[in-house]
Amino acid sequence: MSTLYFDHNATTPLDPFVLEAMLPYMGANFANASATYTAGREARRAVDLAREQVAAAINADPSEVIFTASGSEANNLLVRGYADAWHAEAGKPAGVAYTSIEHPCVAQPVRALGRAGWAVKELAVNKSGVVEMDGISGLPAQTRLLSVMSANNETGVLQPVAKLAGQFKADRDPSCCFHTDAVQAFGKHPLSFRDLNSAGVDALTLSAHKIGGPKGAAALVRDRQLPLMPLVYGGGQEQGLRSGTENVAAIVGFGVACARAVTHLEARIAQARILQQHLEAWLKIRGAVVFSDTAARLPNTTFAAFPGIDGETLVSLLDRQGIAISSGAACGSGKSGVSAVLLAMGIDPLLAKGAIRMSLGMMPSGANTIEEVDRLLGQLDKVLSQLQRFAAVA
Amino acid sequence: MSTLYFDHNATTPLDPFVLEAMLPYMGANFANASATYTAGREARRAVDLAREQVAAAINADPSEVIFTASGSEANNLLVRGYADAWHAEAGKPAGVAYTSIEHPCVAQPVRALGRAGWAVKELAVNKSGVVEMDGISGLPAQTRLLSVMSANNETGVLQPVAKLAGQFKADRDPSCCFHTDAVQAFGKHPLSFRDLNSAGVDALTLSAHKIGGPKGAAALVRDRQLPLMPLVYGGGQEQGLRSGTENVAAIVGFGVACARAVTHLEARIAQARILQQHLEAWLKIRGAVVFSDTAARLPNTTFAAFPGIDGETLVSLLDRQGIAISSGAACGSGKSGVSAVLLAMGIDPLLAKGAIRMSLGMMPSGANTIEEVDRLLGQLDKVLSQLQRFAAVA
Repeated sequence: MSTLYFDHNATTPLDPFVLEAMLPYMGANFANASATYTAGREARRAVDLAREQVAAAINADPSEVIFTASGSEANNLLVRGYADAWHAEAGKPAGVAYTSIEHPCVAQPVRALGRAGWAVKELAVNKSGVVEMDGISGLPAQTRLLSVMSANNETGVLQPVAKLAGQFKADRDPSCCFHTDAVQAFGKHPLSFRDLNSAGVDALTLSAHKIGGPKGAAALVRDRQLPLMPLVYGGGQEQGLRSGTENVAAIVGFGVACARAVTHLEARIAQARILQQHLEAWLKIRGAVVFSDTAARLPNTTFAAFPGIDGETLVSLLDRQGIAISSGAACGSGKSGVSAVLLAMGIDPLLAKGAIRMSLGMMPSGANTIEEVDRLLGQLDKVLSQLQRFAAVA
Repeated sequence: MSTLYFDHNATTPLDPFVLEAMLPYMGANFANASATYTAGREARRAVDLAREQVAAAINADPSEVIFTASGSEANNLLVRGYADAWHAEAGKPAGVAYTSIEHPCVAQPVRALGRAGWAVKELAVNKSGVVEMDGISGLPAQTRLLSVMSANNETGVLQPVAKLAGQFKADRDPSCCFHTDAVQAFGKHPLSFRDLNSAGVDALTLSAHKIGGPKGAAALVRDRQLPLMPLVYGGGQEQGLRSGTENVAAIVGFGVACARAVTHLEARIAQARILQQHLEAWLKIRGAVVFSDTAARLPNTTFAAFPGIDGETLVSLLDRQGIAISSGAACGSGKSGVSAVLLAMGIDPLLAKGAIRMSLGMMPSGANTIEEVDRLLGQLDKVLSQLQRFAAVA
């Protein structure tokens, strides 16, 4: 039985069109992009073109794009690189803030700064998982860096990033940094770095493998005025901010995936929204709680729970039917415990333990269809009936 | 005209056998290795198998292998991760040492530690480019970390790593760290982490794209007792030392490339040595100086100069004939100036400006033949004759 895949927030299938663009760089065009001979210059041109494609997709300048190997690396580069630059300048730590629903690759480097003497503040979210605006005004004056994700990977909730950035910058030195992890939002919601930058956002993070591109390529897009030190030092690639031989094939794939991810975006959002409404209407009729359903959300993400039914059990039973959904973020999967995002929202831990995430494909290649959603619902119905019969007997 | 490629120390062609192993993970098996459903567990098994292949190739335990995206990242993880662990424990910086011929991805993070208050010592090399043993005894007692590459990327000189490690550890606390960047040595010279570890080496770095594997995968192999903090924090992958969604395809390719790189290694070394002798005999007859020719070297690497003839000019003229050689390390290419390695060896800068590096392929796929070396020599002869005629006229 072939797998029906509804876990696109964890990773997406590699778009065959993207793979096609990558293969020459895994074949005859294998040269090091720093080499001076013809093949090396061709590799360099391919990296430059990809940089233009990434920049165009996000309305940024190519010189603002720093390629990394993963979204996690880009987020760490921003957090640590900005903190290091501040420390080198000021000779002492300052304050840093993030939200209670950030991905671990923002939360953990921030907490590491905390262990190194930085004052760390965590902003709360409301019951719908939206970052509360008044948290910003409560931040101490010494807070130099605030990171707020554009869309949450579990609930899909869109955060009012531009407003939050404006509020954060209002009373602060303009060299403060507002960063947004846009890994989940990109390709599913319109994003313009130029507009965000005008609103006070200094940097954002993108990742290829969430939008039909390959694993192994991502980017930090940042205002060139932002003080930043490297995470990986060495040969000086990426404007000296990220050394290491360029992964040309992956970068080329990232460029093509970006171009495809923003083409007909509005139409793809509208299509995904229809599937989401169909899915969630059924879930609610069947007795599920859909988390954050009153908040502005990504059109592909549904995070829900059936009271009294364990999420991991549902994931496992659907897996036996060849259907892939998750009980939350992949990086949290395999560990016991419930979604930290739901707990931060004040959801009852018992209900949170029931959480299942269905994240639909909405890229040009790998988009889920309404028939596939119906097959998911059909299987979910069977599995729920079994569990409920079992519970009634027990 | 198809390119004749003699720059394998910069990067190698991707072995088609390796690509074949990778493609399923860029197709149907695209799942996130942290996902709990069947496809995710299959991706996890592929990563685990690759870890076993890497470990087997280097005579290490799979649990000692930490995957990263590049050799540069692995070297930075070691340097900064060890320094951070020390700092967290001791509350203050100590001393760190490296050699005057280290790759920038070791030298630059070490120098960054220097700017953060660490005492930095640079060990000298002799005229042949070999690290001098008595430099070790001169290191201050506070030196906690010493990094010495196994083989130099430009000269190919093999360093007496086991002896240096023994000497370094002799009078020191065993929790000190000796690291070796083995990126250039691996696959071209026998390496056993178990043996090196017994001799006092705590960690070594490997990279896939230097041995017929893909760009985007590398490893830090380290003694599990070594205190180390992450460079990239997040979801906790790679034993919490290197977070980020695993690049499954690249890791799978790295594993297969490792297995192939150590098969029949002795025979491949003997074959490469024959080409190297053939090449260097001709170069010397034609008036070239072959750098480090009396030192123990990699069998594939020849670094030489024709007095009075500019290296970049030779690279450029051969490029027009479809032949790829380099004037030194790729990460230094494109920048003016001469090889820092040759200057560290005390080579006359005028002679150093003539340097050309020919690094032969010696992997199971992409090995150069003696006929290809002859074509290189034939073209080099023509180009040299032109330049010498021009010089005679001028």
